[in-house]
Amino acid sequence: MTGTLITFEGPDGAGKTSVLRALLPQLQQLASLPIVLTREPGGNAISEAIRSLILDPANTAMDARTEALLYTAARRQHIMTKIRPALAAGQIVICDRFVDSSLAYQGAGRHIGVEAVAQMNQFATEGLTPDVTIYLDIPSELGLQRIATQRQQQNDRLDQEDLAFHQTVRQEYLRLAQADPNRIKVIDASQPLADVINASQAALKQALPTLF
Amino acid sequence: MTGTLITFEGPDGAGKTSVLRALLPQLQQLASLPIVLTREPGGNAISEAIRSLILDPANTAMDARTEALLYTAARRQHIMTKIRPALAAGQIVICDRFVDSSLAYQGAGRHIGVEAVAQMNQFATEGLTPDVTIYLDIPSELGLQRIATQRQQQNDRLDQEDLAFHQTVRQEYLRLAQADPNRIKVIDASQPLADVINASQAALKQALPTLF
Ligand SMILES: Nc1ncnc2c1ncn2[C@@H]1O[C@H](COP(=O)(O)OP(=O)(O)OP(=O)(O)O)[C@@H](O)[C@H]1O
Ligand SMILES: Nc1ncnc2c1ncn2[C@@H]1O[C@H](COP(=O)(O)OP(=O)(O)OP(=O)(O)O)[C@@H](O)[C@H]1O
Ligand SMILES: [Mg+2]
Ligand SMILES: [Mg+2]
Repeated sequence: MTGTLITFEGPDGAGKTSVLRALLPQLQQLASLPIVLTREPGGNAISEAIRSLILDPANTAMDARTEALLYTAARRQHIMTKIRPALAAGQIVICDRFVDSSLAYQGAGRHIGVEAVAQMNQFATEGLTPDVTIYLDIPSELGLQRIATQRQQQNDRLDQEDLAFHQTVRQEYLRLAQADPNRIKVIDASQPLADVINASQAALKQALPTLF
Repeated sequence: MTGTLITFEGPDGAGKTSVLRALLPQLQQLASLPIVLTREPGGNAISEAIRSLILDPANTAMDARTEALLYTAARRQHIMTKIRPALAAGQIVICDRFVDSSLAYQGAGRHIGVEAVAQMNQFATEGLTPDVTIYLDIPSELGLQRIATQRQQQNDRLDQEDLAFHQTVRQEYLRLAQADPNRIKVIDASQPLADVINASQAALKQALPTLF
C-alpha cells in the first residue's frame, strides 16, 4: 500500500466526528494528495445491511460474539471496497473509528476478550494497520453527557449502555495507547472543541511531517 | 453440556438432507431422548437475515472473508438460540452442516485458509465440537449431477461454482476425516439412498451405543 491510513478513535461523545468535520478542510489545504474521509459502514450496500442488522432494536437477543463477527464482516467489506482501493491509489484515508473501536467496545466492553477480537480483525484486515491513530480521550461522565441529547433522539440498541461500560471502553483505549505510543496519539478531548482540533492537527503534522 | 451433538456433512448433493429426512424417525424410535433436527441458519431472525444477505444475488461483490465472517456470525447465533439450550437440556441435536462445512467451503474452497477459518469458528463455538460427524462422501461429478435439477430452479449466488471448487471442498473434507477418525465417520454416498441411510444409522449406533 502506498497511501496513508489515519484513524480517529475515542469513546462516544469524545468529539471524533466534530473534530473531523472541522479538521478535514484544514488538512486538505496542507496536503498535496486527495483525502478520503470515511467511517464504517462505509457506504457499500453489504456493510450498510450488516450495520442495520446490528442496530435493529428488534435484535435485542443478539449475542455479543455474533455482534463482534458482524462488525468485523462490515469492516472487511469496507476495507475491500473503499479503504484499500484508495490506499492503493496513494491517497490519504481518514477513518472515523476502526479496529481499536472493536478491541475497546467488543473485546473489553462486552467482555469477549481483546485478544480474540484482535485475531478476528487480523483476519479481516490482513495486517492493514493505521499509520497514525488520533485517540480523543474523555472522562466517561463528560462523554456521556455530551451525547445525552443526541441519544434521546435516536433509538438504537447501543443506547442502553451504562457508565461502567464506557469506563471499561476508555480504560482499554488507554491501555492500547500506552502499548503503542508510536501509532496512537492521545489528545485531551475534554478541552474546548477548538483546542481539540488544534491539538489533533498538531499531532498529525508531527507524526506525518511529509504529508501535512 | 449434557446432550449429544451429531452433525451431517458432505459436498452439495451428497444426500445429507435426504438421508436425515429418512433417518430421523428411525433414530427417534431407537433413542429414549428427544432429537432436535436443525440446520443453519436455524430459524432465528438474526441468522436468517444474515443468510439472506449472503445469498442475495445482488451481493456478487461480497468478499470471501466477509462471507466467512457472516457464516460464522449466523452459526454463533444458531448455537446460542437453539443448539446450546437443547444440549443443556440433555437432548440430542442433529445438525445438517456445521463447522466442517466452513472449513471445507470457505477455508479450502474459497482459499482463505482452513486454519484461519477454524480459529474464527473456535471463537464462535467456544469449543463446542460434534460428538459424532457423519461425512457423506461423493465424487464431485456425481454430487453436481444430483443437484443440477435443483440448482436450475434456484437462483442463488452459490450456483456459479464449478467442478474444481467442489473437488477442493471434497479433498478438504477427506483430509479432516483422516485427521479425526474418532469423530468423523466416512460413508460412501454414491450408493443407493437406502444403503446410505443404513450405513449412516449403523455408524451412529456404533459411535453412540448408549443412545441408539
Ligand atoms: N470539545 C468539545 N466540547 C464540547 N462539546 C463537544 C466537544 N466535542 C464534541 N462536542 C459535542 O459533543 C457531542 C458529541 O460529539 P461527536 O458526535 O463529534 O462525538 P463522537 O466522538 O463522534 O461520538 P460518537 O462516538 O457517538 O460518534 C456533539 O453534540 C458535539 O457538538
Ligand atoms: N444416494 C442417492 N442416490 C441418488 N440420488 C440421491 C441420493 N441421495 C440424494 N439423492 C438426490 O440428490 C439430490 C440432492 O440430495 P440432498 O438435497 O439430500 O443433498 P444434500 O447433501 O442435502 O445437498 P446440499 O448440500 O445442496 O443441501 C436430491 O435430488 C436427492 O433426491
Ligand atoms: Mg461520531
Ligand atoms: Mg441439504
